[in-house]
Amino acid sequence: MADPLSTPLLDTVQTPADLRKLAPEDLRQLADELRQETISAVGTTGGHLGSGLGVVELTVAIHYVFDTPADRLVWDVGHQCYPHKILTGRRDRIRTLRQGGGLSGFTKRSESEYDPFGAAHSSTSISAALGFAVANKIAGTPGKGIAVIGDGAMSAGMAYEAMNNAEQAGNRLVVILNDNDMSIAPPVGGLSAYLSRIVSSREFLGIRDALKKLARKLPRPLHTAARKTDEFARGMATGGTLFEELGFYYVGPIDGHNLDHLIPVLENVRDAAEGPILVHVVTKKGKGYAPAEAAADKYHGVQKFDVITGTQVKAPAGPPQYQNVFGHTLSKLADSDTRICAITAAMPSGTGLDRFSKEHPDRFFDVGIAEQHAVTFAAGLAAQGMRPFCAIYSTFLQRAYDQVVHDVCIQNLPVRFAIDRAGLVGADGATHAGSFDVTYLATLPNMVVMAAADEAELVHMTYTAAEYDAGPIAVRYPRGNGVGVALPEVPQKVEIGKGRLVREGSKIAILSLGTRLEEALKAADALEAKGLSTTVADLRFAKPLDEALIRRLLTTHEVAVTVEEGAVGGLGAHVLTFASDSGLIDAGLKLRTMRLPDTFQDQDSPQKQYDEAGLNAPQIVDTVLQALRWNESGAAEARA
Amino acid sequence: MADPLSTPLLDTVQTPADLRKLAPEDLRQLADELRQETISAVGTTGGHLGSGLGVVELTVAIHYVFDTPADRLVWDVGHQCYPHKILTGRRDRIRTLRQGGGLSGFTKRSESEYDPFGAAHSSTSISAALGFAVANKIAGTPGKGIAVIGDGAMSAGMAYEAMNNAEQAGNRLVVILNDNDMSIAPPVGGLSAYLSRIVSSREFLGIRDALKKLARKLPRPLHTAARKTDEFARGMATGGTLFEELGFYYVGPIDGHNLDHLIPVLENVRDAAEGPILVHVVTKKGKGYAPAEAAADKYHGVQKFDVITGTQVKAPAGPPQYQNVFGHTLSKLADSDTRICAITAAMPSGTGLDRFSKEHPDRFFDVGIAEQHAVTFAAGLAAQGMRPFCAIYSTFLQRAYDQVVHDVCIQNLPVRFAIDRAGLVGADGATHAGSFDVTYLATLPNMVVMAAADEAELVHMTYTAAEYDAGPIAVRYPRGNGVGVALPEVPQKVEIGKGRLVREGSKIAILSLGTRLEEALKAADALEAKGLSTTVADLRFAKPLDEALIRRLLTTHEVAVTVEEGAVGGLGAHVLTFASDSGLIDAGLKLRTMRLPDTFQDQDSPQKQYDEAGLNAPQIVDTVLQALRWNESGAAEARA
Repeated sequence: MADPLSTPLLDTVQTPADLRKLAPEDLRQLADELRQETISAVGTTGGHLGSGLGVVELTVAIHYVFDTPADRLVWDVGHQCYPHKILTGRRDRIRTLRQGGGLSGFTKRSESEYDPFGAAHSSTSISAALGFAVANKIAGTPGKGIAVIGDGAMSAGMAYEAMNNAEQAGNRLVVILNDNDMSIAPPVGGLSAYLSRIVSSREFLGIRDALKKLARKLPRPLHTAARKTDEFARGMATGGTLFEELGFYYVGPIDGHNLDHLIPVLENVRDAAEGPILVHVVTKKGKGYAPAEAAADKYHGVQKFDVITGTQVKAPAGPPQYQNVFGHTLSKLADSDTRICAITAAMPSGTGLDRFSKEHPDRFFDVGIAEQHAVTFAAGLAAQGMRPFCAIYSTFLQRAYDQVVHDVCIQNLPVRFAIDRAGLVGADGATHAGSFDVTYLATLPNMVVMAAADEAELVHMTYTAAEYDAGPIAVRYPRGNGVGVALPEVPQKVEIGKGRLVREGSKIAILSLGTRLEEALKAADALEAKGLSTTVADLRFAKPLDEALIRRLLTTHEVAVTVEEGAVGGLGAHVLTFASDSGLIDAGLKLRTMRLPDTFQDQDSPQKQYDEAGLNAPQIVDTVLQALRWNESGAAEARA
Repeated sequence: MADPLSTPLLDTVQTPADLRKLAPEDLRQLADELRQETISAVGTTGGHLGSGLGVVELTVAIHYVFDTPADRLVWDVGHQCYPHKILTGRRDRIRTLRQGGGLSGFTKRSESEYDPFGAAHSSTSISAALGFAVANKIAGTPGKGIAVIGDGAMSAGMAYEAMNNAEQAGNRLVVILNDNDMSIAPPVGGLSAYLSRIVSSREFLGIRDALKKLARKLPRPLHTAARKTDEFARGMATGGTLFEELGFYYVGPIDGHNLDHLIPVLENVRDAAEGPILVHVVTKKGKGYAPAEAAADKYHGVQKFDVITGTQVKAPAGPPQYQNVFGHTLSKLADSDTRICAITAAMPSGTGLDRFSKEHPDRFFDVGIAEQHAVTFAAGLAAQGMRPFCAIYSTFLQRAYDQVVHDVCIQNLPVRFAIDRAGLVGADGATHAGSFDVTYLATLPNMVVMAAADEAELVHMTYTAAEYDAGPIAVRYPRGNGVGVALPEVPQKVEIGKGRLVREGSKIAILSLGTRLEEALKAADALEAKGLSTTVADLRFAKPLDEALIRRLLTTHEVAVTVEEGAVGGLGAHVLTFASDSGLIDAGLKLRTMRLPDTFQDQDSPQKQYDEAGLNAPQIVDTVLQALRWNESGAAEARA
């Protein structure tokens, strides 16, 4: 179907400078065209839709009013930035979003000067904007820091830490709270309830009232006395919203789809003599696209879809997703084990816990975007005898590293970590890759680190974790579908620290951790075809290592290779350390460690990413062959 | 001097059960005796004094009113828990505080059932108490979670995340905000200003008013209507403190040294039908000990001292502390480089930045206990062209790991990390050890990781970091004094990724990272004495490795040993990985990696801790000798 879009105004806008040439009365039409272009683009590529649609007017208004890129605009998370990309010189590539070699699905510094700070994890924008604001203040140069942050992201501690420090920026910091009462799932907690109370208890601020409120911050000497009174009223006993108590001037709530309100209010915010100012804007996720507005998740993340009907292209039926294998297994286990509980940080569906949440609502905890709290809360539950599972993506568990160390491992509390999205993740790119968890967890005393090689293993390991009360234990598994093995009727306990032989050979040993096992087996086939008898082991544990198995494999094979979906310092490093500690390397070992490269990889299909990383079957074969050839020429060279 | 203490009442209290037998009118005297005993004990041992003195009455009141240990009392940070330890069966060991084999200076689960959750890092208490409360709620068992948290700790994001989730616990959660307007340094930020406004704008809540306020939460059916009104008033437009907006019932401020107020208020809080309740208690750090009250830091952490005069035993004069070498160097560099700025998370003195803060106040940022914000704020500053130094202890940088990955490394922004307290730290024990930073940082693409071998190296590395604009860079250094080398007049740039030979030999190579260099040199002397010619290299960089130097040392010496002050996955793992990647191990390598053991080590002197860790000179010698002997018997054995 040909693209039916007619976008005469949008066609004139290459950058925000062009936008600023438009008359205010043209902005409504521009916003409509921008919305249609966004829908059309995401229909082609898939990606985040609802969030972008919710901020179309806000995007237009901000670039119209503020002096971007000199004013530094930081979109929190950045998944709502597609309209922003279209307005900032990237419309010609907007249909490459999230594709290999294409535009990132998030803001990214290397893409454009209009992306002064990249994002993808939530709640970083206020800190970053404050950095820009303060740097300009020190240098005496103009330029504000503008953070646009959702109400869901406001539940994370670092947003609060930043607000607590905002006052030093004065009027150089503007925080726009984009309140759509929703992050990915509906938000939770006291802050969310508080925002709802504001919105439900007040009309949208009329334009006259908003301007009157802001007028007091304008640089008119006559207003000094009024300002002082205002400050007093703001700070002392009565009144004062939460944001005012933290030192902000608060304006709102304002209808975030009404350009006639947004533009003058933002102009006044821009010109205010005092600050920092927080503008509370209320928007509707998925706004202006009926199928999105009607969907429960407001088309947060979508496949390619038909623009007219909204029908998303279905992924081909395949094996179940790892996240659901985990979630369903845990929910079943919880039927008979009343100590099991589940904790997610705003990812009830992404972690596969939606079923658990329905079947065991009293033992299910969605804490919002609050990984730090999630882990220590789980530690408290464990200390009182529960069996908590913290289900957090590998990359987001980084947010709670100190809690893992200090509250869980030092106290040796049996918190179970279900680490989803381990390894490379495809379209979300470097910011979402789960590259470091094996390294940062296996270095910790008391921690047990498992990786599932397939979905059946995940069932067994989930059960093993549930039954393991001796200390912390983690199981990692990738994004996406399983490999298609049969799921066990009855889960079995895996012996802690024991790997398994998947295929026995004699000359080459491949020591795999995680779902590279499939590639390892393919590599073994290829090696056998060359007459090289190959053993494949699934080590299952990065910690504790199966030292007996590893010793046997290293000493009875000519070449050994470790393969893992993680960065340096993980399985390979632990195997090498064991080989060194035990003196196995003294007499010579052809041991190679295959791991993720020392770079941050951009988005692409996972298959291509692993190819780029050098972790597919052909590359395993190459590594083995090179190690074998070493005898003939390499050893002498290495020592040259 | 004999101990002049007379403590007749305290002598009758072995556990809180004994305390509860006392008449209310006796508690004042008990508190006085408890205060004297605390002062006397810390005079003997050194440690945290001011914080404990501030909560003497609170400690008595909590144990008097609540049903500890069934009610789970969680002291935030835990450095104020000495009076609590005295009242909970540990008085007989209180003069072993912070000594090897003695009581921990913090709460610790293994010490007592009255310590249900250990601490040492700040701001974990609300999450943990919520875990206890919710576990009891699920199980239908009685028992509350009680968190006592300081105003300084409230600035950390995780406290806010927990508050945002507190409502689910209902009346099972009690948060006692211990507001002494001070954490270690005076607190900063919007929250602190807000608390000051409350306290300065109101009288302490009279006992009648406090009880009236609480009465509405009592389980009287007649109060239903009143409660609804109250809830409405609490939530809607007017009134409402920050804590009420997050879903707490707020009571306060209350004089935290007046037992006649504390006891009835806490009794009512205990019996309240609704919750969660936050009790705002105002205390004075150092209360009741004149020398502490008069000191700027209120005797936060002290050496042993004379109880009568308050005079602290001076540490013997020695080389300057690493923290001050760093801080003074940076301040000097900032004189001529206006892009340098410094960020600390509530540790202006501990990080040696106090001088910088005086000489460059406009470029100094104490963000409060808010490491996450500190790092991303620094990233924002760097993105706008500043040269920010984030000075954070190794163990606390764990709090900001995701920000290091996501905001700094992925964007390759030149944030400088000054990582103090790297390695073992002595009396503060496992919770404060800086064991993991090399592992968790060196696994990250773009990151440069340096370790200073002595104070002169720290000067050079600080300068190197300042001048390095290509990406993130970290320099780690230990707690305590330097080794006494002369400080350079003019700092020199260290070449990135280049180590240095400190001593040349031919048979044994010791590859050192950090301040184990001194022990490595001692070991070399001992080895020479045995006729083993020994090379010692200071690698300086864990990343990037000096591959040329390492290759040369590994291939020209019979035995090589790496030595580092960090856990597995760090320098040793990276050297082994390089040796494997490059095929150096194929022909046999006697390479051993010496590192911290896979345990959390309790407090002791650093020297003894390193002895326990096996990282002192005699143990380096042993490791070398064992590796040498391997030829004769070990190799065959290893392959058996």
